[in-house]
Amino acid sequence: MDATFPEEFERLLEIWGEYDDLLNVSQVLDWDEETQMPRSGSAGRADHKATVRRLAHETLTRKELDRILKKLESWEKDQPYDSDQASIVRVARRQYEQAVKVPPRLVSELSRADSEGYHSWLDAREANDFTRFVPALHKIYRLCRELADTLGYEEHPLDALLDQSEPGMKICEVEAIFEELKKDIVPLVDAVSRKEGAVNDAVLHQQFDESKQWSLGLEGVKAIGFNLKEGRADKSVHPFSTAFSPRDVRITSRVFPDFFNPCFFGFLHEAGHGNYMQGIPVKYRRTPLAGGSSSGTHESQSRTWENLVGRSRGFWQGFFPKLQTAFPEQTRGTTPEEWYRAVNKVEPSLIRVEADEVTYSLHIIVRFELEKAVYDEDLKVEELRDAWNEKFRKYLGIVPPTDLVGVLQDIHWSGFFGASFVSYTLGNVMSVQFYEAALREKPGLKDEFAKGDYSGLLDWTRRNVHAHGSKYKPGELMRVVTGQPLSTGPYLGYIKRKFSDIYGL
Amino acid sequence: MDATFPEEFERLLEIWGEYDDLLNVSQVLDWDEETQMPRSGSAGRADHKATVRRLAHETLTRKELDRILKKLESWEKDQPYDSDQASIVRVARRQYEQAVKVPPRLVSELSRADSEGYHSWLDAREANDFTRFVPALHKIYRLCRELADTLGYEEHPLDALLDQSEPGMKICEVEAIFEELKKDIVPLVDAVSRKEGAVNDAVLHQQFDESKQWSLGLEGVKAIGFNLKEGRADKSVHPFSTAFSPRDVRITSRVFPDFFNPCFFGFLHEAGHGNYMQGIPVKYRRTPLAGGSSSGTHESQSRTWENLVGRSRGFWQGFFPKLQTAFPEQTRGTTPEEWYRAVNKVEPSLIRVEADEVTYSLHIIVRFELEKAVYDEDLKVEELRDAWNEKFRKYLGIVPPTDLVGVLQDIHWSGFFGASFVSYTLGNVMSVQFYEAALREKPGLKDEFAKGDYSGLLDWTRRNVHAHGSKYKPGELMRVVTGQPLSTGPYLGYIKRKFSDIYGL
Repeated sequence: MDATFPEEFERLLEIWGEYDDLLNVSQVLDWDEETQMPRSGSAGRADHKATVRRLAHETLTRKELDRILKKLESWEKDQPYDSDQASIVRVARRQYEQAVKVPPRLVSELSRADSEGYHSWLDAREANDFTRFVPALHKIYRLCRELADTLGYEEHPLDALLDQSEPGMKICEVEAIFEELKKDIVPLVDAVSRKEGAVNDAVLHQQFDESKQWSLGLEGVKAIGFNLKEGRADKSVHPFSTAFSPRDVRITSRVFPDFFNPCFFGFLHEAGHGNYMQGIPVKYRRTPLAGGSSSGTHESQSRTWENLVGRSRGFWQGFFPKLQTAFPEQTRGTTPEEWYRAVNKVEPSLIRVEADEVTYSLHIIVRFELEKAVYDEDLKVEELRDAWNEKFRKYLGIVPPTDLVGVLQDIHWSGFFGASFVSYTLGNVMSVQFYEAALREKPGLKDEFAKGDYSGLLDWTRRNVHAHGSKYKPGELMRVVTGQPLSTGPYLGYIKRKFSDIYGL
Repeated sequence: MDATFPEEFERLLEIWGEYDDLLNVSQVLDWDEETQMPRSGSAGRADHKATVRRLAHETLTRKELDRILKKLESWEKDQPYDSDQASIVRVARRQYEQAVKVPPRLVSELSRADSEGYHSWLDAREANDFTRFVPALHKIYRLCRELADTLGYEEHPLDALLDQSEPGMKICEVEAIFEELKKDIVPLVDAVSRKEGAVNDAVLHQQFDESKQWSLGLEGVKAIGFNLKEGRADKSVHPFSTAFSPRDVRITSRVFPDFFNPCFFGFLHEAGHGNYMQGIPVKYRRTPLAGGSSSGTHESQSRTWENLVGRSRGFWQGFFPKLQTAFPEQTRGTTPEEWYRAVNKVEPSLIRVEADEVTYSLHIIVRFELEKAVYDEDLKVEELRDAWNEKFRKYLGIVPPTDLVGVLQDIHWSGFFGASFVSYTLGNVMSVQFYEAALREKPGLKDEFAKGDYSGLLDWTRRNVHAHGSKYKPGELMRVVTGQPLSTGPYLGYIKRKFSDIYGL
C-alpha cells in the first residue's frame, strides 16, 4: 500500500494485523490440539484458547475502531467499490459492527455452552440417547436465538446467524434454493434406487494398506496443485484444513483400513480448501480480506476438487495407473470406468459425511428444515429426534434405527444451533456454477484431467475466486465471476446428466 | 486456594493466569516453528509471535498490578515466607518490577536486534568469518548493556542480566565458583590427556539405524520416568524441551546416523528438563510459581538424568541388554563396562555441545570470561575471536582452526550478549549437590539403577526440587534442599573420583 493513505487507514491496518495474528494463533492452538496434543493437555489448552479469543474479541471491538471507521467513511466512498482500500474498510466495518453488538457476557455464555454442550453430546452419544442431550441443546438454542436478536434481522432470526457464514444471504433465498433442489433430487434418488445393483462398489471395500493409502492421498493432493512445501498433511479424527498464513496451510485426513474413500476423498476435499487458502494473495495477509468469501464459497472449492474433479471420469482415466501401482491386488480386473462408477455409487444412507453426491443435499435439507421449524416455534427441541426420523423416511426412504446414526451424528449442534449446515449445500451449488464458467473459458479442461493435468482449473480458480480474498460477499462474487446470481440450474443439470449416464436413466 | 483471600489476590491470579496463558501460547508457536512448520511460514509466524509477546508484556506491566501489589504488601508479610500465597505475591512482584523498568522501545529494539543478529550470524557462519558478525554483535551488546543499566545493579552490570536467569545470584559469586572449577579441572584435563588411548570410543562411531536410535532413545526417556502420554517427542535441528502445562510437556532430539551419543543423550537431557516440567504441581498452573527456580536449576535436572544417571556405570549395567537388542551387531564383543567407559571418554574438543563432562565447564568459563571482559571494557567486541582462540589454547590446549568451530559456534550471542552461558555450568554444580543429598536419604539409588529402576531418584527430585515450582530463588532452594549454600565441592569431588577411576589416575 502506498504512503498517501489517510493515517486512520494505516492505523486500521495496524489494529487489524494484531486481530488477524490472534485469529491465526487461535487456529494454531486448534490445529495442535487436533493433530499433536496429548489428551491430558486439554485443560491447559482450553485456558490458552479462551485468553487468545477474548483478546481477539477485545481487539476487534476497540473503541478506537469506531472513531477510525467514522473518519474513513467519506474517503472510502471516494475509492472504487472493488478497490483493495474500499474493500478493506468495508469488510472491517461489517465485522466491527457485528462484533460490538454482542456483549462480552453473551460471548462467554456461548463459549461455555459450547464446551458443556460438547460433553453432553458425547454423553448422549455414549448412551445412544438423544433425550440426554436435550437440556444442553435447549440452552444452546436459547443462546443462539438471543444472539440472533442481538445481531438483529428484518425477516427471520436465522437471517442474522446466516449472515455470519454467508454474508448478504437471506433464509428465504436458501429456502427457495432448497425447494428447487428437493423437487429434482428426491425423484432422482427414487429413480436411482430402482436401479439397485447397476453400480457395484465392492472394489472400494477391501483391505487397503494404511501407509499406502496415505501416500496415494498425498499424490492426489499434489496432483491437484496443493503445495505441500508451504503446508503440511497430518492425521486427525475429523479431517479439516486451516491456514496460519497463505504460505503455511495445513490439511488433515484419516484412514480406514477396509474402505478406500475416506482417506483419498478426504484429502482431495481438504486440499480443495487448502488450494483456496494458498491462493489468497499474500498482499491481503493481516487485512480484513485475508479470508475467503464465505463458508459456502470455501465449500465450493473443496467440492470442486473432491467431486467435480476427483469423482470425474477424466480424473480416473488419468489417475488410475497411480492407483494400480499402489494397490495392484485390489485393482486387478477393474477398469478405470468401473472404478469411476464405484466411487459414484448412489445409495440413500444415514450418515451425512459418508453420503454420495446425489443424496448429500437431502441430508442438509433435513437439518435445515428442522432448524427453521425450531426457530419458527413449529417444533420443540425435544421433538427433533422424531422429526428427524420422519424427514429421513420422507426424503430418503430410510429411518435411522438409533440416535447415534440419526439426530446425534453431527458435532455441529453441540456448540451452535442456527443455519449450521446450509453452507455445505450452497457450496455444492456454487461449485458447478463456477466450474461451468471455467469450462466456458477453457473448454478443454476435462481432456487435461485425463492427462493428469489439473493446472488449468487451478489457474482459473486462482484468478477468478481466490484472488479476491474476502473482498466480495458470496452473491457479489458469483456475479463478478459468472455475471449471474447464484442459481441451482448448473448444479441440477450436472447431477442429472452425470447420474443418468451412470445409472442409464 | 480458599475463598478468604483478599480480592486483590484473586485479581492478581486472574491477571497472572492470562499472562501465563500468553507465555504458553508463545511457546506453542515456538514449538510448532521448530518441529512442524514449513519454512515458508516464517514471516507469518514472526508476526504471530510479536503480537503475543507484546500482549504478554502489556499484561505483565498493567498499571492495575502496581495498585494490587501495593495493597497486598502487608497481607503478604503476614503469610509465612514459604507459603504459596506469600510466594505468589513475592515472585509476581519481582517479575512485575523488572518488567516495568524496561521501556517498550527497548523491548522492541532488543527483539529486532535478535532477528537481525540471527541472520547476520547465519551469514557470518556461511562465510566462516567472525568479522561479518561484528556490527550486529556490537549492537546487541550495546542494547544488552542498556538493558543492564535500565534494570540497575550495585556492583557489576552483568549482575542485572544474571538476575533474570539466576535470581539473587551475583557475578562475583559466579567468578569465585568458576575459579574453583578451573583450579581443579584444568590439571584434570591435563592428566587425562596424558592417558590418551586409555578409553576407546570407536564403538560409538558406527552406523546406527536412525529409527532404532529413536526407539531406543524413547525407551531411555520412559525408563527415567518422563511420561510420554502427557507429552510428546519430536525431531528438531536443536534439541529442546517446552511445557504448555505440567500435563503437556514436549521434548525433542535429533539423530546422527554414524554417532550414538546425540540422539540418546539428547533425549535423556531433554527428558530431564521434561521431568522437572511434569513435576511442577498442577496447583501452580497459571500462577507465578508455574516455572522452575532458575535456568541453572533447570539445567541441574537435565544434567542429573543425562550425566549422573545416563553416564553412570549402574545405568549401563541395567540398560545394556536393551542396547544389545536394538544394536546386536554394533555391540557384539563390547561389555557394559567398555560401553560405560566409551560414553565417558574425555577429550579436549572445540564444540561445546559435543563436550564431555570434564571439559564442558571450560567451554563455559571461556565464554563467561570473554563476556565479562567486554562488559569490563577490557576487551572490544571485534577482539572476541582472537581472545576466544587464546583462551582455548590456554585452558584446553587446542585452537579452533576456523570461526565456525570457534567463536561463531553458538546461537546465543546472535540474540543476547550477557552472562549467557553460566547457567549450564551452575546446573552441573547444582546437580551433584542435589544428587548427594538424594544419596544421603536413599543410599541404595545406584543399585536401583543397575536394576533399571530410576523411580527412587525421580521421587526424590519430585518432592525436593520440582514440588516448589519457582517459589525459591536458586540459592534459597539449595539451602532448603541440602541445608547448605551452593558449593563446588560435591561436583569437583564427583568429577575427580569418576574420571580418576576411568582413567586410572
